[in-house]
Amino acid sequence: MWGGRFSKTLDDQFAQLNASFRFDWRLYDADIRGSIAYARALARAQVIRDAERDALIDGLVQVKQEFYNGTFTAQPSDEDIHTAVERRLGELVGSVAGKLHTGRSRNDQIATDTRLFTLDAIRNTQHAILNAQHALIEKSEQHLDVLMPGYTHLQRAQPILFAHWLMSYFWMFERDYARLTDCITRVSVLPLGSGALAGNALAIDREFLARELGFARVGENSIDAVSDRDFIAEFLFDAALLGVHLSRLGEDLVLYSSAEFGFVTMDDAYATGSSIMPQKKNPDAMELARGKAGRVIGDLVTLLTVLKGLPSSYDKDLQEDKEPLFDAVDTLGALLPVVAGVIRTMRVNADKMRAALDAAMLATDLADYLVRRGVPFREAHRLVGAAVKTAEARGVALADLSLDEYQKIAPEFGADVKTIFDFARSVASHEIGGGTGPNAVRAQIAQARAVMNRREQKAKKG
Amino acid sequence: MWGGRFSKTLDDQFAQLNASFRFDWRLYDADIRGSIAYARALARAQVIRDAERDALIDGLVQVKQEFYNGTFTAQPSDEDIHTAVERRLGELVGSVAGKLHTGRSRNDQIATDTRLFTLDAIRNTQHAILNAQHALIEKSEQHLDVLMPGYTHLQRAQPILFAHWLMSYFWMFERDYARLTDCITRVSVLPLGSGALAGNALAIDREFLARELGFARVGENSIDAVSDRDFIAEFLFDAALLGVHLSRLGEDLVLYSSAEFGFVTMDDAYATGSSIMPQKKNPDAMELARGKAGRVIGDLVTLLTVLKGLPSSYDKDLQEDKEPLFDAVDTLGALLPVVAGVIRTMRVNADKMRAALDAAMLATDLADYLVRRGVPFREAHRLVGAAVKTAEARGVALADLSLDEYQKIAPEFGADVKTIFDFARSVASHEIGGGTGPNAVRAQIAQARAVMNRREQKAKKG
Amino acid sequence: MWGGRFSKTLDDQFAQLNASFRFDWRLYDADIRGSIAYARALARAQVIRDAERDALIDGLVQVKQEFYNGTFTAQPSDEDIHTAVERRLGELVGSVAGKLHTGRSRNDQIATDTRLFTLDAIRNTQHAILNAQHALIEKSEQHLDVLMPGYTHLQRAQPILFAHWLMSYFWMFERDYARLTDCITRVSVLPLGSGALAGNALAIDREFLARELGFARVGENSIDAVSDRDFIAEFLFDAALLGVHLSRLGEDLVLYSSAEFGFVTMDDAYATGSSIMPQKKNPDAMELARGKAGRVIGDLVTLLTVLKGLPSSYDKDLQEDKEPLFDAVDTLGALLPVVAGVIRTMRVNADKMRAALDAAMLATDLADYLVRRGVPFREAHRLVGAAVKTAEARGVALADLSLDEYQKIAPEFGADVKTIFDFARSVASHEIGGGTGPNAVRAQIAQARAVMNRREQKAKKG
Amino acid sequence: MWGGRFSKTLDDQFAQLNASFRFDWRLYDADIRGSIAYARALARAQVIRDAERDALIDGLVQVKQEFYNGTFTAQPSDEDIHTAVERRLGELVGSVAGKLHTGRSRNDQIATDTRLFTLDAIRNTQHAILNAQHALIEKSEQHLDVLMPGYTHLQRAQPILFAHWLMSYFWMFERDYARLTDCITRVSVLPLGSGALAGNALAIDREFLARELGFARVGENSIDAVSDRDFIAEFLFDAALLGVHLSRLGEDLVLYSSAEFGFVTMDDAYATGSSIMPQKKNPDAMELARGKAGRVIGDLVTLLTVLKGLPSSYDKDLQEDKEPLFDAVDTLGALLPVVAGVIRTMRVNADKMRAALDAAMLATDLADYLVRRGVPFREAHRLVGAAVKTAEARGVALADLSLDEYQKIAPEFGADVKTIFDFARSVASHEIGGGTGPNAVRAQIAQARAVMNRREQKAKKG
Repeated sequence: MWGGRFSKTLDDQFAQLNASFRFDWRLYDADIRGSIAYARALARAQVIRDAERDALIDGLVQVKQEFYNGTFTAQPSDEDIHTAVERRLGELVGSVAGKLHTGRSRNDQIATDTRLFTLDAIRNTQHAILNAQHALIEKSEQHLDVLMPGYTHLQRAQPILFAHWLMSYFWMFERDYARLTDCITRVSVLPLGSGALAGNALAIDREFLARELGFARVGENSIDAVSDRDFIAEFLFDAALLGVHLSRLGEDLVLYSSAEFGFVTMDDAYATGSSIMPQKKNPDAMELARGKAGRVIGDLVTLLTVLKGLPSSYDKDLQEDKEPLFDAVDTLGALLPVVAGVIRTMRVNADKMRAALDAAMLATDLADYLVRRGVPFREAHRLVGAAVKTAEARGVALADLSLDEYQKIAPEFGADVKTIFDFARSVASHEIGGGTGPNAVRAQIAQARAVMNRREQKAKKG
Repeated sequence: MWGGRFSKTLDDQFAQLNASFRFDWRLYDADIRGSIAYARALARAQVIRDAERDALIDGLVQVKQEFYNGTFTAQPSDEDIHTAVERRLGELVGSVAGKLHTGRSRNDQIATDTRLFTLDAIRNTQHAILNAQHALIEKSEQHLDVLMPGYTHLQRAQPILFAHWLMSYFWMFERDYARLTDCITRVSVLPLGSGALAGNALAIDREFLARELGFARVGENSIDAVSDRDFIAEFLFDAALLGVHLSRLGEDLVLYSSAEFGFVTMDDAYATGSSIMPQKKNPDAMELARGKAGRVIGDLVTLLTVLKGLPSSYDKDLQEDKEPLFDAVDTLGALLPVVAGVIRTMRVNADKMRAALDAAMLATDLADYLVRRGVPFREAHRLVGAAVKTAEARGVALADLSLDEYQKIAPEFGADVKTIFDFARSVASHEIGGGTGPNAVRAQIAQARAVMNRREQKAKKG
Repeated sequence: MWGGRFSKTLDDQFAQLNASFRFDWRLYDADIRGSIAYARALARAQVIRDAERDALIDGLVQVKQEFYNGTFTAQPSDEDIHTAVERRLGELVGSVAGKLHTGRSRNDQIATDTRLFTLDAIRNTQHAILNAQHALIEKSEQHLDVLMPGYTHLQRAQPILFAHWLMSYFWMFERDYARLTDCITRVSVLPLGSGALAGNALAIDREFLARELGFARVGENSIDAVSDRDFIAEFLFDAALLGVHLSRLGEDLVLYSSAEFGFVTMDDAYATGSSIMPQKKNPDAMELARGKAGRVIGDLVTLLTVLKGLPSSYDKDLQEDKEPLFDAVDTLGALLPVVAGVIRTMRVNADKMRAALDAAMLATDLADYLVRRGVPFREAHRLVGAAVKTAEARGVALADLSLDEYQKIAPEFGADVKTIFDFARSVASHEIGGGTGPNAVRAQIAQARAVMNRREQKAKKG
Repeated sequence: MWGGRFSKTLDDQFAQLNASFRFDWRLYDADIRGSIAYARALARAQVIRDAERDALIDGLVQVKQEFYNGTFTAQPSDEDIHTAVERRLGELVGSVAGKLHTGRSRNDQIATDTRLFTLDAIRNTQHAILNAQHALIEKSEQHLDVLMPGYTHLQRAQPILFAHWLMSYFWMFERDYARLTDCITRVSVLPLGSGALAGNALAIDREFLARELGFARVGENSIDAVSDRDFIAEFLFDAALLGVHLSRLGEDLVLYSSAEFGFVTMDDAYATGSSIMPQKKNPDAMELARGKAGRVIGDLVTLLTVLKGLPSSYDKDLQEDKEPLFDAVDTLGALLPVVAGVIRTMRVNADKMRAALDAAMLATDLADYLVRRGVPFREAHRLVGAAVKTAEARGVALADLSLDEYQKIAPEFGADVKTIFDFARSVASHEIGGGTGPNAVRAQIAQARAVMNRREQKAKKG
């Protein structure tokens, strides 16, 4: 295709290294959408005749159908998706195919294709996030009255609602969704019409192209347009951070489904066994949720490293952008529905959670009790610490120290101190925005539903 | 401070490992702003009396002044900025200091501090970006008529305007700025009132706290609030991608200031010499711009790796968030003004750029010539490729083939083919939005100025 | 120092960005050792007189002492450790100081300094590893008879010895130690005598320099020598993988010290409390062990990214090598002794471990029982799986199914099936090299002791 | 296969996420080699009869042949390579297939497979490195007399031999090779016999297994053995650093083949053209060499992140180890031969290199001239710097200042100063070990050849 000035064919090993068709064929839909729009633009600019435009479009539609049906046959000379499509188009429509590339470079073409692909990928990822968020909300609503230990440093800290824990992941996903929405504004920029780097010399109508392809605006600088891969990097970061959230959820559920915690039981449909130990039931889905963050972070590092220190405008190194993009898209696309399924189907063992609450988790409530009786908090903290120490030394629970013992520690303790040792009361005392009180959690869920509604409205429209 | 239940002092080496004051003292301003707001909120909630509030605020203002003046004296027991401030406050105002921490945990406190710090860091980074963008615009306007070779694959591709090349960096920085603005919406969320993880049990007014501290809204879930470090990760990604842009600019300017290119000359104020080679003048500033992307990417990887697989809610691992944040902030804060200075002061060698244009860079124009005479582009490309080969074989420039030779290659070539070999004409033929034509570049600069104005207006307001 | 050809002083912000003294002062000992050796070599090559050599050495010793005593006073002009030392040397010994740099460049000098520093860092890191390994061996020997559940997928899998679990970390550290030893062969290569990049023109004796400075051999190519940072990257990788091992140990001990597991109790000297929850005792040391892997991985990524795509020979970007190196060295130097201390002091709760063993963990033993009675393993696995299912459905332990029930599942089960349900017997059946049988573990510890002895012998010698 | 205790089939999406056959089929050869050895070991331990062993081996050989021939037909139930082989083996040899897994777990099996694969991968990578090194040596020997500018900071520094530059890459690859050799000692450790994590209960002969499979020794701890992925991480690091070296060579050759440098010309067999610009000849091979470092660094980060903070022993997350391993192996396997081909075929433009030498590059020689006349080097540097400034101000070359002008700068300059301005003389003055003098470079090449011989001898033997 570009061989006019060359006097040798490519070395075989180099040709294989150089070719990208083995992975970029996935862009066929985007590539052909782009070419159809470009054919229209060429006709509007009177570079080709309307009949030529129609022939090109008919041929392109047919090539696309062949890809879609799996009947497209690649040739060894198909260096990339662009040359593959152009080659096949030529077979179908003859020499007019040679007019399609007028004023267009693979540099602006691949940038256009990848942006179209990324826009679809973002929409699909957002859809999968919404599904996981629905699972969290539903599960929360089904178990609104379940108490569990809240942890910090993986040590029992304070009693919380199970629904409050679950909803904490809702808000992580909410940020992931919002970041992807922000990302769209930087993906939805048309590169086509930038040529190799200097722009298009055919006075093509770029606003028309943008409208045809659904881009929000036209790229402002042709040099930047052909080498800007920020939008992929940004998507990969958003994906990596979503991956990190999934890894934290994975860790929590691996812990909670261990025999020692026993808070949840994975459904058999989402667990596996051992090849050697017949009793095993393993939470593989959530281990993969934990582990796959690694590869998405790796994808991000790959692209950032490729971009680092690259000379201006298009360099071949940029071909290395697509495999990490595809890998991240595929990873999240496979993982998110499974995570949603795990949440929907897991059994919640409220009794085990309840049994894991111990009186020491109310030490803060006890300190607050003293505060209400005028003791400065820092002093109250010290006094309750002493009570904890005494209870540990005696081998009894904090709730089981006698009033006498309490009063020896601090005279402010009264007979009502025992009312403190009520987990539900403790939870109910946190009725503050974002807190774990039952009403606060109900309000939180309502807020989450409102967020979802807004999004689903918007997704329907746009 | 938390030692009530403990029966031993800390191992020395562990105490040093555990303590964060050696780096988190930098949060003093944010920490004390947060504590003043919290004292006000405690008084509003009637947890402390107004006189206590005033005593606390007076003391806090004094502690802040000590930090600001450099007269604050740390003690070995100052585990972190929070305990250091509380300890000093106690020395200044007595036991009322022990009331400040009522209902507050270091978990929601540090999250609040870090968000306040990050908001400042974003504003400062954006300010530094604007400065660099001004430098690019000014330099572009000063050299509007300078032609240079545009490269792809670092091979001469097509003639472009020097201003067009410069402005390509403007738009990269524009995206960096916009990403940081988007980031703010996720930083500007109040964690205070989330306590250790369960929320605040004192019915503190979180909306009041948000207003006092300038947060746009209140965090929706207390568990998430104490362990959410997404805002740092997002800032670090934005910083890393900005770093990548600086690294590309660094690479370009290292190349362009080499003897071989010679397109620009670094000002003596931004270059260094060699300890052994007296003739050397090295573009260290731009090499550092290229290299420092590495550390910011490293900072991002650090945080993502720390977060990966972490159990829900606060874990001590999260203490590892601050040093990468500080490092990225400091790196960009040191680098951006120098890059702006380099751009402003570098000498533009228009003659060297002009001399680097060669006729072969007009091969695309030549192909377009044939296209205008009805040759399909792909065929035109092949024919011009043959012309290039002929010229190379003969050892002459493409412009120096005779008309006869041209017509032997393609009869469509006419006598006017020689008019193609005019670099200014080629540039002028790219008068398309985003293209390198002189009018297009002027329009681009005007668009850039408009973007800057909008931002500066907004920054003034908000 | 290099300003002869320059007509302006440096821009202040650039000077600060450019200068490295704020961190590379740490190389003073290596730098001065290198300069003393170089002064000797200059005298041997008759470039300077013996009296000049002696004056230089006396002065250098004094500068070193000033650094050591903390009395060295930096000047704003001290761009880096080399210029700082040379400047101070000039103040002490006069113009002869100007001869020290003959034939030497900062390029070969900094490479030499950094290698000397890294050699020390490796030795110190190895020493700290040995200490941690001793802690593991001692703790193993103290608890040789303690049984605990072995996990896969964090699900109870098979009974093992606690000592076997502990010793698994010994072998990870063993590989870390060995990797560092391998690394030494690539660090211990002399760059000095490579000049700026072309070599030294004074016929300096490089073998002499290598001997003086303790390098194992002389660098083979001067261009490579001034820009080779592989040895740092390799050290950082070794550090990162050691960090990963520490993170896994951290995770295990965070889990094992949770209330749910309760297998170990952190000593009060290695735990911290909460600012708000008086009962809390947090395993901060092991959380930091888990989290700090992130920063060392970040350090590695920083350097690899800096090096990626760098033009041949020395570039200023290479200055970015030192901070990640120092950070990794400091991180491990602070962390390893604390981890050793945690292991030495933690309380082992053998009863809790024992209580966590359940009969289902012997399912594999049960399958092996059937295998010994001629059932193919895959079939035996299926049959025992059915037994597990039956027991779960009935809500009883696997050991509590009746013989009748067992025989209904498989007629091969005999009355002796109940002898299987003995955890110690199960452990004892794994007396294979590397297995968890008591004798195998004792042999493993003996092997570990032998490894340690060999190393300590070698460290003493070399 | 492990479904005995389960009462549901897997969710489809989870089954797909969980399955690894789509990538781990590549381990078929290693897996079947391992199974054959294990069948032998089972027979030696009298767990199976000799006839059973033979049936198993015959069946396994047949399965391997099916894979090799491409006739193996996967089933949806083939979760991974192990279950696929076992399933097919059962079809071929009947129920005896169910005995092969006795005492073996997929945990020790996959570890064994991956180590066998990695050993092969290392050998292949080393072979490809040797090939590239041969190309460097040959090219060096063909151009022993070619002078070129040596650069630091990409500024012309001192004249060097082209062969010296080329050979600098030889020594980078030498370290890569050596690191891989060191890595082998940590890969060549047998995990088989470690069972799920506790060891093998059948008294299998692990030393026999090690011998059969070519492992150097037996793993010391079964828990470590099933979760140790250090050997992959180490390989990936070695690969990443090799990738970095290739990226630097890529950058150099991209620069040197630009029109501005013009030092080398890519062979047409290793260059590509442009889809739009007929004159373009792009160094894609070397751009890919530069860019592909990114993905290998990404692979390394992926694995380190997966491993970070993982609980002891086998977790499903470890399944994420194989794709980065395969990717790095494939990347280097595709890239190294092409790089060797590029070096072998590129045209060296000695005249262009010579033309790029300028007199200022001899400033250091000029300073050395003054040193030989008794001027301290630092003073000589300053004086030559002044000469450079004078020449620049006058717009002449350093060599073209008059003797008078030189003597005005320093009376030590004599008439012989003009003899300094001879590039070959300058190069010849660096006849020091590792320097750029012609004899030194010849000695360096001889040393390189000796290294290669030793290796090729060793590779032949073992």
